[in-house]
Amino acid sequence: MPTYGGYSNTIVVREEFVLHISDKLPLAATAPLLCAGITTYSPLRHWKVGKGHKLAVLGLGGLGHMGVKFGAAFGAEVTVLSTSPSKEAEAKALGAHHFVVTSDPEQVKAVKGSFDFILDTVSAEHDMDLYLSLLRTNGTIIGVGVPSEPYSIRPFSLLAGRKSMAGSGIGGIPETQEMLDFCAEHNIVSDIELIDIKDITTAYERMLKGDVRYRFVIDIATL
Amino acid sequence: MPTYGGYSNTIVVREEFVLHISDKLPLAATAPLLCAGITTYSPLRHWKVGKGHKLAVLGLGGLGHMGVKFGAAFGAEVTVLSTSPSKEAEAKALGAHHFVVTSDPEQVKAVKGSFDFILDTVSAEHDMDLYLSLLRTNGTIIGVGVPSEPYSIRPFSLLAGRKSMAGSGIGGIPETQEMLDFCAEHNIVSDIELIDIKDITTAYERMLKGDVRYRFVIDIATL
Repeated sequence: MPTYGGYSNTIVVREEFVLHISDKLPLAATAPLLCAGITTYSPLRHWKVGKGHKLAVLGLGGLGHMGVKFGAAFGAEVTVLSTSPSKEAEAKALGAHHFVVTSDPEQVKAVKGSFDFILDTVSAEHDMDLYLSLLRTNGTIIGVGVPSEPYSIRPFSLLAGRKSMAGSGIGGIPETQEMLDFCAEHNIVSDIELIDIKDITTAYERMLKGDVRYRFVIDIATL
Repeated sequence: MPTYGGYSNTIVVREEFVLHISDKLPLAATAPLLCAGITTYSPLRHWKVGKGHKLAVLGLGGLGHMGVKFGAAFGAEVTVLSTSPSKEAEAKALGAHHFVVTSDPEQVKAVKGSFDFILDTVSAEHDMDLYLSLLRTNGTIIGVGVPSEPYSIRPFSLLAGRKSMAGSGIGGIPETQEMLDFCAEHNIVSDIELIDIKDITTAYERMLKGDVRYRFVIDIATL
């Protein structure tokens, strides 16, 4: 039996897995919504993040930039936590209200105990005790990245302040449709670089270096 | 300035830290409620554990035995997870509905993906990925023990099933009063061994070996 996935231009699907994409949405910039979009939309909805909440987004990549857009659209006060001071202007253009350089101890100290939620999009190892210390009482870190090493968390980092470390992965079909409809209504898409299929190797190498704002999308017409 | 704490028989306190203990409650067995009691009562209330929930209590010591009593009193279906098969009868006498020996892989496998909450009272190192695998979707482990080493948690253990690892420590004065009143109404106290002050060294040594059902209380009249 042949399969029709990947780079096919003709595919067969089961109708219960078909989603409706509004004509208002540009297709290329909509493609990453089906991964980075739903992966960040779903936990922010599950934890009811919105007005009155201080949300930090840790890491400003493919996932992070969607987290900022959704967080701001839901009414939260959004802070981007990043190791790269150069990303401040971009973060604010995406909708972030504040920007904290995590390599600067003074800036980090100023936000201790201040966030209701941290959407943690980082897949490299990072200091969870430090980020837990930035949560206020009852705060939650929602991990959507997948570091290859286990998280190391001191019991007191959770116990003091009744904090939580949670995880969330992707989302189901009904919520993905809800997300697409929300995006159409609020003019939200992913920031992308549309590439020709012949440039895929270069794009892959740039992706490995984190040199992409914020997702590559392959133009299948160039196949 | 002298202080009047510890083993004093005359003390001075600020009135906002005074709690009312019902005449229905035996004083000696009430003493541990102010630590093990509120430490387990508070998170079970915060996470609204009750009817319709499957609650596992990990570890059956001073904290665990109160977790079982409160969990059962709140209407949850309570399972004790313990390394000691010998504790099954005790666990059930305390109110547990089920008992799982965690050193038996077959028994552990049978409860995979089944709990809404695990109240984790263990202060020794233990395999968090294993216990996270016993939670159902959206389940939460609430840690109230304090292992000396950090928890090690694989990101996928949280991400798959949108699970949480939380912590909780003690409780405030209003909730402690609420807990004492609840205990008076439901005839809940700690299971204790009342000791003479002269036996404190033996009691301390037995406590280090885990040989106590479930808290030692010193009779201050023997001072």
